[in-house]
Amino acid sequence: MKTKLLFLCSLMASLIVTSQQHEHQSSRPLSFPDIPGYKSLKTDLHIHTVFSDGYVWPNIRVMEALRDNLDAISLTEHLEYQPHLEDIPHPDRNRSYAIALEEAKEHDLMIVHGSEITRSAPIGHNNAVFIKDANPILQDKAEKAFAEAKKQNAFVFWNHPAWHNQSPTGNPILSDFQKDRIKNDELHGIEVINSVDYAQESLALALEHNLTIMGTSDIHGLIDWDYTEKGNQRPITLVFAKERSIESIQEALFAGRTVAVYNELIVGKEEFLVPLLKASIVVEKATYLRNTQVLEIELKNSTSSNLLFENVSDYTFYDSSPVFEFKAGETKKVALKTLEKKNEITLKLKALGCFTAPKVSPTISWTISPEN
Amino acid sequence: MKTKLLFLCSLMASLIVTSQQHEHQSSRPLSFPDIPGYKSLKTDLHIHTVFSDGYVWPNIRVMEALRDNLDAISLTEHLEYQPHLEDIPHPDRNRSYAIALEEAKEHDLMIVHGSEITRSAPIGHNNAVFIKDANPILQDKAEKAFAEAKKQNAFVFWNHPAWHNQSPTGNPILSDFQKDRIKNDELHGIEVINSVDYAQESLALALEHNLTIMGTSDIHGLIDWDYTEKGNQRPITLVFAKERSIESIQEALFAGRTVAVYNELIVGKEEFLVPLLKASIVVEKATYLRNTQVLEIELKNSTSSNLLFENVSDYTFYDSSPVFEFKAGETKKVALKTLEKKNEITLKLKALGCFTAPKVSPTISWTISPEN
Amino acid sequence: MKTKLLFLCSLMASLIVTSQQHEHQSSRPLSFPDIPGYKSLKTDLHIHTVFSDGYVWPNIRVMEALRDNLDAISLTEHLEYQPHLEDIPHPDRNRSYAIALEEAKEHDLMIVHGSEITRSAPIGHNNAVFIKDANPILQDKAEKAFAEAKKQNAFVFWNHPAWHNQSPTGNPILSDFQKDRIKNDELHGIEVINSVDYAQESLALALEHNLTIMGTSDIHGLIDWDYTEKGNQRPITLVFAKERSIESIQEALFAGRTVAVYNELIVGKEEFLVPLLKASIVVEKATYLRNTQVLEIELKNSTSSNLLFENVSDYTFYDSSPVFEFKAGETKKVALKTLEKKNEITLKLKALGCFTAPKVSPTISWTISPEN
Amino acid sequence: MKTKLLFLCSLMASLIVTSQQHEHQSSRPLSFPDIPGYKSLKTDLHIHTVFSDGYVWPNIRVMEALRDNLDAISLTEHLEYQPHLEDIPHPDRNRSYAIALEEAKEHDLMIVHGSEITRSAPIGHNNAVFIKDANPILQDKAEKAFAEAKKQNAFVFWNHPAWHNQSPTGNPILSDFQKDRIKNDELHGIEVINSVDYAQESLALALEHNLTIMGTSDIHGLIDWDYTEKGNQRPITLVFAKERSIESIQEALFAGRTVAVYNELIVGKEEFLVPLLKASIVVEKATYLRNTQVLEIELKNSTSSNLLFENVSDYTFYDSSPVFEFKAGETKKVALKTLEKKNEITLKLKALGCFTAPKVSPTISWTISPEN
Repeated sequence: MKTKLLFLCSLMASLIVTSQQHEHQSSRPLSFPDIPGYKSLKTDLHIHTVFSDGYVWPNIRVMEALRDNLDAISLTEHLEYQPHLEDIPHPDRNRSYAIALEEAKEHDLMIVHGSEITRSAPIGHNNAVFIKDANPILQDKAEKAFAEAKKQNAFVFWNHPAWHNQSPTGNPILSDFQKDRIKNDELHGIEVINSVDYAQESLALALEHNLTIMGTSDIHGLIDWDYTEKGNQRPITLVFAKERSIESIQEALFAGRTVAVYNELIVGKEEFLVPLLKASIVVEKATYLRNTQVLEIELKNSTSSNLLFENVSDYTFYDSSPVFEFKAGETKKVALKTLEKKNEITLKLKALGCFTAPKVSPTISWTISPEN
Repeated sequence: MKTKLLFLCSLMASLIVTSQQHEHQSSRPLSFPDIPGYKSLKTDLHIHTVFSDGYVWPNIRVMEALRDNLDAISLTEHLEYQPHLEDIPHPDRNRSYAIALEEAKEHDLMIVHGSEITRSAPIGHNNAVFIKDANPILQDKAEKAFAEAKKQNAFVFWNHPAWHNQSPTGNPILSDFQKDRIKNDELHGIEVINSVDYAQESLALALEHNLTIMGTSDIHGLIDWDYTEKGNQRPITLVFAKERSIESIQEALFAGRTVAVYNELIVGKEEFLVPLLKASIVVEKATYLRNTQVLEIELKNSTSSNLLFENVSDYTFYDSSPVFEFKAGETKKVALKTLEKKNEITLKLKALGCFTAPKVSPTISWTISPEN
Repeated sequence: MKTKLLFLCSLMASLIVTSQQHEHQSSRPLSFPDIPGYKSLKTDLHIHTVFSDGYVWPNIRVMEALRDNLDAISLTEHLEYQPHLEDIPHPDRNRSYAIALEEAKEHDLMIVHGSEITRSAPIGHNNAVFIKDANPILQDKAEKAFAEAKKQNAFVFWNHPAWHNQSPTGNPILSDFQKDRIKNDELHGIEVINSVDYAQESLALALEHNLTIMGTSDIHGLIDWDYTEKGNQRPITLVFAKERSIESIQEALFAGRTVAVYNELIVGKEEFLVPLLKASIVVEKATYLRNTQVLEIELKNSTSSNLLFENVSDYTFYDSSPVFEFKAGETKKVALKTLEKKNEITLKLKALGCFTAPKVSPTISWTISPEN
Repeated sequence: MKTKLLFLCSLMASLIVTSQQHEHQSSRPLSFPDIPGYKSLKTDLHIHTVFSDGYVWPNIRVMEALRDNLDAISLTEHLEYQPHLEDIPHPDRNRSYAIALEEAKEHDLMIVHGSEITRSAPIGHNNAVFIKDANPILQDKAEKAFAEAKKQNAFVFWNHPAWHNQSPTGNPILSDFQKDRIKNDELHGIEVINSVDYAQESLALALEHNLTIMGTSDIHGLIDWDYTEKGNQRPITLVFAKERSIESIQEALFAGRTVAVYNELIVGKEEFLVPLLKASIVVEKATYLRNTQVLEIELKNSTSSNLLFENVSDYTFYDSSPVFEFKAGETKKVALKTLEKKNEITLKLKALGCFTAPKVSPTISWTISPEN
C-alpha cells in the first residue's frame, strides 16, 4: 500500500546512499565541471521503453536519469521494431515522449523528443533527436525518413556502427548511404561509445567526416542491472552548451561540441576534451616541504570519473608512481622534485584513459605558483 | 548493441555479486529449509506490471523473482484500476500472465495466474489467485466477482486490510462483506504483511477466522529500489507444500499452511512456524570445553533472515548475551554452563522477532548430545 | 622514511574513514549522551602492553583509545606475571603509565594509573586503579597487596570472576577472600563483561554485594584484530561523572555510577541504565498522518550501539514489527495507532538487549506531544 | 580472559574475512605466480619493533606477515638508534630475531636475521640481512660496520636513498662512501620503494651500478594503520629463488633476481619483470564470436595487484578501451578484431604501471590459438 509513495521517494534516498559509497568506486551521480564559455550538460540520447523493445514504463527512465544526475534524456523508440505492438498498439509514436514529459514536469530534467530509424546494414540504426513529430518519420524508404527528420531540423546520429551483428569484422563500414546522408546534411553524429562498447574506428570516422562524437547507454532493461550493480556508470554524451536548455543542447550537437564518457574512458575532440580535463583537476594548494626543494601539490578530481594520469612534467615525482589513478572526487597530493625553489612551475599530466583520436591521449598543463 | 544480451545475462552475474555481500547484511536470494512433510516454497502473490498500475514489463518481474530465488509469483493486475488503459487497451486481462509464462519457460519459476479485485472500503482490495480466466472476474458488483473467482476455484485473500487510506485508524475492520465472503468460502486469506507494513491486528483476524496468513511485496516499481537498496528483502509468503508444483501451492494455501516473512519478521501459525524455526537452526557440534563444565555448541542459521533469539534454556550462557542476533547464513557458537557434564541437554531459544499471535513469540527446543 | 609521520597522522585519517562506515554496522568511535547531572565518560580500565604480557608499546594503546573515542584508559600491567621480564627488566612498575602519560600529553585522553594484582583462584585477578605507585603493591601476600592499594585510595575490582580457567563451571564463586576484601572496603567493583564474555551471575554478585559494574577489553594484542575487524566494538565501562576529570571518574566508580557496554549489550543498575537509554533515544518529531489517527514519530538513536527494542506502549505500531533493531546513529520512524487524536501520548519501549539484573530488561517511557 | 586465545586465532579469521573483500580492492594476502625456473617469494626485509624505534613486540610482526601471506621477513632494528634503550637495555642485539624465530616456529614463515646500520648523510641508512650476529656490526666507524657485515656474508642494501631528510632535493646522491662500498662488494642493493615512496632516480642508480632492486615497508607502527586501512598493500621485494629457503633467497638477492612491488606499481629488471607479468596473466579461453571475425579472449589476473594495461597488439579491441585496469584476481574478457579468422594471434599488452627503467614500461606478448 505504501509502495507508490516509497517508489516516488526512493530517488532522494538513493542519492544519499550513493554519496556514501566506498571511495574506491566511481559514484553513481555523474558530475563534470563546466568549461570556459560553456555549460557541461550530461545527456543520454539513446534509450528504450515498453513503447519499442524496452522493458519499463517511461517514468522509470526519468527516475533513473535523476539518480544519475543527468541534464537531458531522449526516449528513442524504434519506429520500425515494435515487439510489444500487440499490447501497445499506439497509433501515435509520440506517446513515450509525452509520458516522460509529464513525469519530468516536477523535476529538473529535460526531455528531448527523439526516435530511432531502424534498418539492417548498410543503413543500420540511426537516432533522430529534437524532432517535432515521430509519426511522419516512419517511412518505407530510409531516405524518406532521413529527409523528414531533416525537415524537422532533427540532429541525426549513426548508432553502434561497429556492431558485429551488422558488421562481422567489428569495424564500422561507411557505405554510400551514410556518405550521401552526410553530404545532404542529414547525418550529423556517430556513436563511438554504445552501451559498454567503444570502437576507436568509429572515432576515426567521426574525426574524418566531422561527425559529432556521441556516447549513449542504449538501455532496454534497467540501468541498475546493466551498469550500476556491475560497478559501471551509464555512458553519456557530455554536451558543451551555451546555456542549460534543449535549444542550446541542439545547437551544441550540430556544432560538434561533445565528449563521450563511459567510466574512466573519455573520448572527444581535443578542443573540448583538453579544457574539460583542465577544469576537472583543481589545484588546491602548492607548498615546498620544509627545508627541501620538494614541492607538494594538492589536487582534486572534481569529476565523477576515475582518471588515469602519467606525469610528463619537466620534474619527476618525489614519492608516487609517475602513472597513477585519480579517483572520482578524490583529493590527493603529488610532490615534484623541482631541484631548486621555483616561483612558478608547470605540472603536465598525460590523460592515459582519454582519447582525442585513436591511440592519442591528450596532455594537460597547469601553471602553479607555490605559496612559499 | 550488446544491451539485450547483457540484460538477459545479468541475472547470473547478479547472483554471484549478491552472494558476496557483506556478512552482516541479510542476503538477497531468499532461502528457507523444508519442514517435516513439506517443501518450503517462497512465493510473492501480489505484484503489478504495466498491465495495471505498475511500471515494468512482466519479464522484469520474472527476473526479479529469479534474483530473489522465489519459487512462484503471481502478477495480480487490478481489474478495475487501469491507469495505462489508453496505451495498453488490452481486451484480454490474461495478457500479463501469458507474457510472464512465456518469459519463465526456460527458468525454474512457477507463474500463478491471478488478478486483483479492487474496490473502496469496506470491500477493499482482494487478490484472487489460481484463476483460469481473469476476464469474467471483472464485474460491476463485487459479490459477483467473488462468486466468479470461487467458480474458478480461486484462492482469495484480503489485501492490506489495515491500510490507513481505507481505515484511518490503521486497524482492519471486518465488515459484513468480508463476513459473508468467509461464510460463503469466497475469502480464504489475509495479508498480515503488505509491502513494508505489518499489522498484528490483521494477524489476530487471521487466527480468529482461520484465514491463511499472507505476506506480499505489492510491488509497483522496482524491487531493487523499494527493497534491496534499502537493505531490505522483499516480503514473501512461505508456503508449505507437499511438492513443488502450482497445484500443491494451491492446496497448501487453502489448508492455511503458510508463514509470512519480511526480513527478520516471521509470522505464522505455531504449527508451521515452530517446525520452520527448528529446521532453520542446525546444531553442528557440541563439545565440553577442556577441564570445564561449559558446553560449547556450534549452530548454523540456514535461512536468509537474521533471527533474534533469547536463551530460555535451563542453563545460562557462558559468554554471550542471552539476547542475541543470529545473522542469515551465519555459524556461531554459544556456550551453556551445565554445571555438571551431561549426556543430553535441551537448548531452548525464544524467537523474539517471530510471532504466532499478537505479542506471542514461540520458543524452540533442540535436544543435544555432547560429543565428549 | 615517512613512516613515523604517517603513523602519527593515521589517527585523524582513520577517524574520517570510520565515520563513513556502512550504516548498518555499529561505528568504531564510541559515543553516548550525558545523563541528567552527570557526564557519560567512556573508559577502559583493563589493558596490557609489553610491560606485562601484552604485545604493543604503550603509545599504541593511546592511539587505539583515541580511535575509539575513549575519555580514559588504564594500563593495568600484571605485577606478578612478567613474561617479557628478561628483555624489559624494569625495576619501576610505573613505567607503562609514565610512557602513556607522555604520549597522551597532546591529546584529550586521561590516563588512570593502575596495576593488576594477579593470583590463582580463589583470589583471582584484580585491578587496582587510581594508584599512586605500583611498586609497593607488589607483595607476597595478596592481603598485603590489597591493603597497600587501599592505602593509596585505589578503586579495586575483581577481573573475569567467571573465567573457566579459574572456575570450571563458568560461574563466579565468592570466596572468603573476596568477602573479607568487601568487608574491609578493599574490593569495590566486579567485571560483568571482560573481553567478549558476559556473565549474568557476575551481575547478580554485583547487585547482591553492591559492587560497581565494570566492562573492560582486557586487551593484550590489537584492538583492531580482536574486536574491530570482527565487527565488534571494544567493551567499556561508561562512568557517570560529575565532571570530565580523573578525580570525578574515581568518585563515580566508588559511588557505583557505571554501566558496562559491549556492542548492543548494555548492563547496569536501573538508576543509571534507564536515564542513559532515555537520553539515548531522541524524539525528533511526532505528527499525525493526514486524515488518520496514526501518529508518526521520528526517533534518533544517538549512541554508537545498535539497540533492540520491543514496543510495550498502550498502542500498537501501524507498520513495523513490535520488536525492532535500532541501529547506532540511525534516525527511524515508528507509527502508533492511537485510535483517536491525542494531545499527549506515552511511548514505552522495552530494551531487550539491556539488563538491570539477570534476565531483567528495563522499559523506558517518553512523553510525546504531537505537533498537530 | 579469552583474549590470548582470540589473539592467536585471529589470524585465520582474518584470512577468511579478507578473502571476501570487495572485488574492486586489491586483496590483503599478497600473491604472485612463479616464473620459469624460479619460485616467486614475497619478502619484507625492512621492519622495526620495540627493540629499536618500532612500537610492537616481534610476534606481531610475524602475525602481520602471515596475514599478508609473506614468505620471509627480517626485523632490521637500528643498531645505533635505540629510543627504548632505557626500558629495553638488551646487551644482545639478536633478541628481536630470536623472539620472532620462536614465534614463527609453528608457521610457514622464514625469519631472516638482519640489522640496520644507521648514519646521517652521506652514509645514510643501510640494512644488512642474512647476518649471523648483530652485535659486532655495531661499530663506531661505518666502514667497520660494513666490513663486519661482509665478513658475515651479509647482503647489504641502501635504504630510502631519496629521503628528503637526508637529501633535500629528494634525489639520491651517490657519494664516495657508497662508491667505495660497491667497489668493495659491501653494498649490493638499493631501495627503489621504501614505505609509500618510489624514486625513479633510485631505480636509475640500481640499473647503472647493478644493484639489486628492493621494496620494503620500513614499518614502525601497524601494517593495518599505515597500509591496509588506507586501501594499500605493504610494499615487498619479490625474490626469484631456486627454492623456498633462506639460502635461496640470499643467493637470489646477491644475483639481483628481484622486483619491488607496491600496490599496482611493479619495478624490476626487464629479465625478471617480463616473465613475471607473462605468468601473471593467464589466457583461459579464446573463441571467435559466432558469425564474426571478433576473437573473444578470457584472461585472468592471477596476482594480488591491480594491473594497468594498454593494448598494443596488431589488432584493436572490439569493445573495451585500449587502456584498461585489470583488477587483482579478476577474470575479464577482451575481444580483438582480427579482420579474418586466424589460427594463431599475438596479444601484446604494455604494462603502464610497471617499470624496467625510469619511464620505461615493458610490453608483454602472449601467443594465442583460438579454439574454433
